[in-house]
Amino acid sequence: MKKMDLRKAFTLIEPGPVTLVTTSAGGTNNVMTISWTMVVDFTPKFAITTGPWNFSYKALTKSRECVIAIPTVDLLDKVVGVGTCSGKDTDKFDTFRLTPIKGKYVEAPLIKECVANIECKVVDIIKKHDIIVLEGVAAYFDTSRKEKRTLHAVGDGTFVVDGRTLDRKKQMRSKLLGIF
Amino acid sequence: MKKMDLRKAFTLIEPGPVTLVTTSAGGTNNVMTISWTMVVDFTPKFAITTGPWNFSYKALTKSRECVIAIPTVDLLDKVVGVGTCSGKDTDKFDTFRLTPIKGKYVEAPLIKECVANIECKVVDIIKKHDIIVLEGVAAYFDTSRKEKRTLHAVGDGTFVVDGRTLDRKKQMRSKLLGIF
Repeated sequence: MKKMDLRKAFTLIEPGPVTLVTTSAGGTNNVMTISWTMVVDFTPKFAITTGPWNFSYKALTKSRECVIAIPTVDLLDKVVGVGTCSGKDTDKFDTFRLTPIKGKYVEAPLIKECVANIECKVVDIIKKHDIIVLEGVAAYFDTSRKEKRTLHAVGDGTFVVDGRTLDRKKQMRSKLLGIF
Repeated sequence: MKKMDLRKAFTLIEPGPVTLVTTSAGGTNNVMTISWTMVVDFTPKFAITTGPWNFSYKALTKSRECVIAIPTVDLLDKVVGVGTCSGKDTDKFDTFRLTPIKGKYVEAPLIKECVANIECKVVDIIKKHDIIVLEGVAAYFDTSRKEKRTLHAVGDGTFVVDGRTLDRKKQMRSKLLGIF
């Protein structure tokens, strides 16, 4: 897991992959599957939709910290498993053999098996819409990983895998940050 | 463009495709490329991030209406074109040969060339974060269209095309709405 230029971390969320969001409360790690995410700015800030119906919500809002981890296609059954049980009665890291790694800025763990991880601080909770605004404070990418294709949850029980990549850098030059 | 069960419209946005958002102001149509979108609830509600830096912002916040259109891979160069010029000095529908279709509930036009369209009303503007919350009031899908693969903007000038679809409906049954 190599440290990544934080200015590029928004590119992990902008394509809309399903994510695993980890939290930590009183030494207990938990993780939830979230596909309702959005970039809010390049610094980077992100929004996620979650609420009290998720067991992790309390830990997330109390600790005001989390990690957004990006799983790849080989982890699909873990993603589905994590998303269909509750931390209330399941140690999900143990059950789905996910390996927590200590981050630098937050107590919530990175997930070793994921291709990328973003340590995040909660900057705002918009209760009216169940939107939580996060600021990414550090990002990591597993450059040694061969499988890098992410998953896009459709919401009907199917998932679309990343296909080919099309390059329009030249046409978009005027809109791109100077870092690309 | 066939009317679609509104309860399924969230599945158009959940996978995170790049979208074209249309507006109408004083009889003038405009369209912008937006990839910072998120589902907020199943009714459906959506969040998008946009602000005064987008020429469409004024029309969107004044009319409190828009259409979210979903382009497919064959429209990539139109998507990039729309995203790299401004409605301030360009008639984008004309320039990129997009065909506006009259919707039923909003003045903003559907885009005929897109595989899906969602008529939306603005329900909230969260100025602090440049987040606009929308309610989908009608959705349409072009079932006659052969090419259905959508695009995922990475943010560095590249776009990932939808690859294969993996089915986990059985494993996710407990989490799915009864409509699937």
